Amino acid sequence: MTLPDSTSATLQLGACAIVGQPAATIDTPALMLDLDAFERNLAQMQQAADRAGVQLRPHAKAHKCPEIALAQIARGAAGICCQKVSEALPFVQAGVRDIHISNEIAGAAKAALLARLARHARMSVCVDDARQVAALAQAAAQAGSHIGVFVEIDVGQGRCGVADAPAALRLVQAIGAHPQLAFRGLQAYHGGIQHVRDYAARRQAAADAAARTATIVAELAEAGVACATVTGGGTGSVEFDLKSGVYTEIQPGSYVFMDADYGRNDYGGALRFEHSLFIATTVMSVAAATRPSPRVVLDAGLKSMAVDSGLPLVWGANGQDHALAYVAANDEHGIVEPVPGTSAAGLPGLGSQVLLVPGHCDPTLNLYDEIVGVRGQAVDSLWPVSARGLSR
Amino acid sequence: MTLPDSTSATLQLGACAIVGQPAATIDTPALMLDLDAFERNLAQMQQAADRAGVQLRPHAKAHKCPEIALAQIARGAAGICCQKVSEALPFVQAGVRDIHISNEIAGAAKAALLARLARHARMSVCVDDARQVAALAQAAAQAGSHIGVFVEIDVGQGRCGVADAPAALRLVQAIGAHPQLAFRGLQAYHGGIQHVRDYAARRQAAADAAARTATIVAELAEAGVACATVTGGGTGSVEFDLKSGVYTEIQPGSYVFMDADYGRNDYGGALRFEHSLFIATTVMSVAAATRPSPRVVLDAGLKSMAVDSGLPLVWGANGQDHALAYVAANDEHGIVEPVPGTSAAGLPGLGSQVLLVPGHCDPTLNLYDEIVGVRGQAVDSLWPVSARGLSR
Repeated sequence: MTLPDSTSATLQLGACAIVGQPAATIDTPALMLDLDAFERNLAQMQQAADRAGVQLRPHAKAHKCPEIALAQIARGAAGICCQKVSEALPFVQAGVRDIHISNEIAGAAKAALLARLARHARMSVCVDDARQVAALAQAAAQAGSHIGVFVEIDVGQGRCGVADAPAALRLVQAIGAHPQLAFRGLQAYHGGIQHVRDYAARRQAAADAAARTATIVAELAEAGVACATVTGGGTGSVEFDLKSGVYTEIQPGSYVFMDADYGRNDYGGALRFEHSLFIATTVMSVAAATRPSPRVVLDAGLKSMAVDSGLPLVWGANGQDHALAYVAANDEHGIVEPVPGTSAAGLPGLGSQVLLVPGHCDPTLNLYDEIVGVRGQAVDSLWPVSARGLSR
Repeated sequence: MTLPDSTSATLQLGACAIVGQPAATIDTPALMLDLDAFERNLAQMQQAADRAGVQLRPHAKAHKCPEIALAQIARGAAGICCQKVSEALPFVQAGVRDIHISNEIAGAAKAALLARLARHARMSVCVDDARQVAALAQAAAQAGSHIGVFVEIDVGQGRCGVADAPAALRLVQAIGAHPQLAFRGLQAYHGGIQHVRDYAARRQAAADAAARTATIVAELAEAGVACATVTGGGTGSVEFDLKSGVYTEIQPGSYVFMDADYGRNDYGGALRFEHSLFIATTVMSVAAATRPSPRVVLDAGLKSMAVDSGLPLVWGANGQDHALAYVAANDEHGIVEPVPGTSAAGLPGLGSQVLLVPGHCDPTLNLYDEIVGVRGQAVDSLWPVSARGLSR
């Protein structure tokens, strides 16, 4: 079958928003960023790092967006972290010149891409096995580039990373045997700490991880190995990591957006970030709004949000809407009900825009191709999520 | 900053696989389709529909891939379903000429796109509110096209759809008032039935939904309204829907892939579909393989799979690998441990490829830009997931 001549003119998907449009009228589902809150989050984290004399290297796995990385660097960030080699590619293309892959990599294709990227930017990566070092050396030799290497140590998560200083030392020596690889220091990250709800318990867990890191740094120093950089920390632990005296660099990512899950942490200290990222949705059915179990249906479900860390919150004009609950996500539908004890009369009407705070920002971002930046109730900018889906 | 001249030549992400490559060596994470199993699934469903004299209109929300839609149509499918208007766009562009949007839509942008698509393909959509009918009529008038309209009835899910025949009749009359809209029949779908594990309980639930549908069809007939098409049914209920005598068309989607969640259903009848879709992953760290809680780390986590319906299964050479369990998904990492009682010696080594059966195929597919088709251990084809992310 062939299409009529008019196809190319009419068969295009328009943008979900245009600059200047009222935010309340954009096509949904769409990711909406409150630019004022976002900029306050950026400034707060940079100031905290500056005060502590610690380098900020924000994690781009949270936003996958070169515009945001460049905004972070413009405010003082040393560069960015990525979690996958392919994820780094659009950032290098956009002009980011210092990227740490905060992860181990496996496979010749990934090492080759990393070595190619290292011809254009200062690149580093983690290792926890001598075979990874050999693969990096071979790729760097082939590409004619230099790659920085961090030894990852396991500080309690039981995921990646070597267990102790002797194992780290063996890797440092393996790295030193290759002229195109340079040992940069240690990565010490504990993902499990980040979402410990209680403030004191989270502080203690971060202190335990920092103590473990300090021990290994000291043991390496005794063996004559200096760790120029000790990198780690996330949005949940960064307040403690900055004061630890161990970390020279922090890697928080989610602070730019603050998702519902991070919002459930108890923050006793000075650092409090704001929800800046929302899923804009529309009520597409009110057929069940007047039945015994009153509810309305939004146009955003599992393909528009990650639910691994819980369902999204309904957001109102003045913060969380405590009268409405998003109670179930189907593939393309979201069910919103009145919170028990509140009236069904408060349910939004057909065609109404409803904003949600995603449960978990990182995998939610990974579902969208663009972020709609909003300021003063109007669309200010459209930013491509250039690294969306780049998980290799 | 400007990039060196060599940038455009070297800063490209290669394909995750090339045709002819051994499947075991592709870059990961990647979606891998066993083409033989996939084709057996297609044939089995089409034959079942043909035997029952019921039209098959497979749901493209499961695969979002025009190559697969065209394969379904070539075997006898009447067209496809999509769940969102934007999702239909790449299928129309690929030559699919009969698409039912099995959902309500809200917002002028969506109605306008649907009306434009209707200039190129036979399009239909669901309604459960008279305001939706008015919006469709306006868009069709503006585009100069005709749109088929189904009245959705709620047969027990409590999501979209009107509750009874009088409400349906009012919508049929509203549709009839607009010359560019045509009433096509009823949609009666109950998503909650599809995953009822017990065969007899699922059969009973499907029978209840079919009985409710038959009652409304009869009441509409008494009022002089004929329902030319009654569409509904999914992979979990289709065996019963085909025999119900009520449905003239079925809409299954997941049968092409069969995910781990659908695999947990008890199938007492004749229709049994095979797992054809896998997430190809690579072991990226074995640092914790010899510790007290032995484990290895895969390069695929929450950004490479949906976990709303459970974690993926580890797949071996002869079906599920019952010695290994994928026990936790972090954003970009997957933790694999030996099943209690089995030896850690069976853990895969660094760099090994591990195949997973996703817990839920629809939102997993929505994370990938391509499907790697495999036949006889070699890459046979690369199919774009053209509707990935098209949730508007």
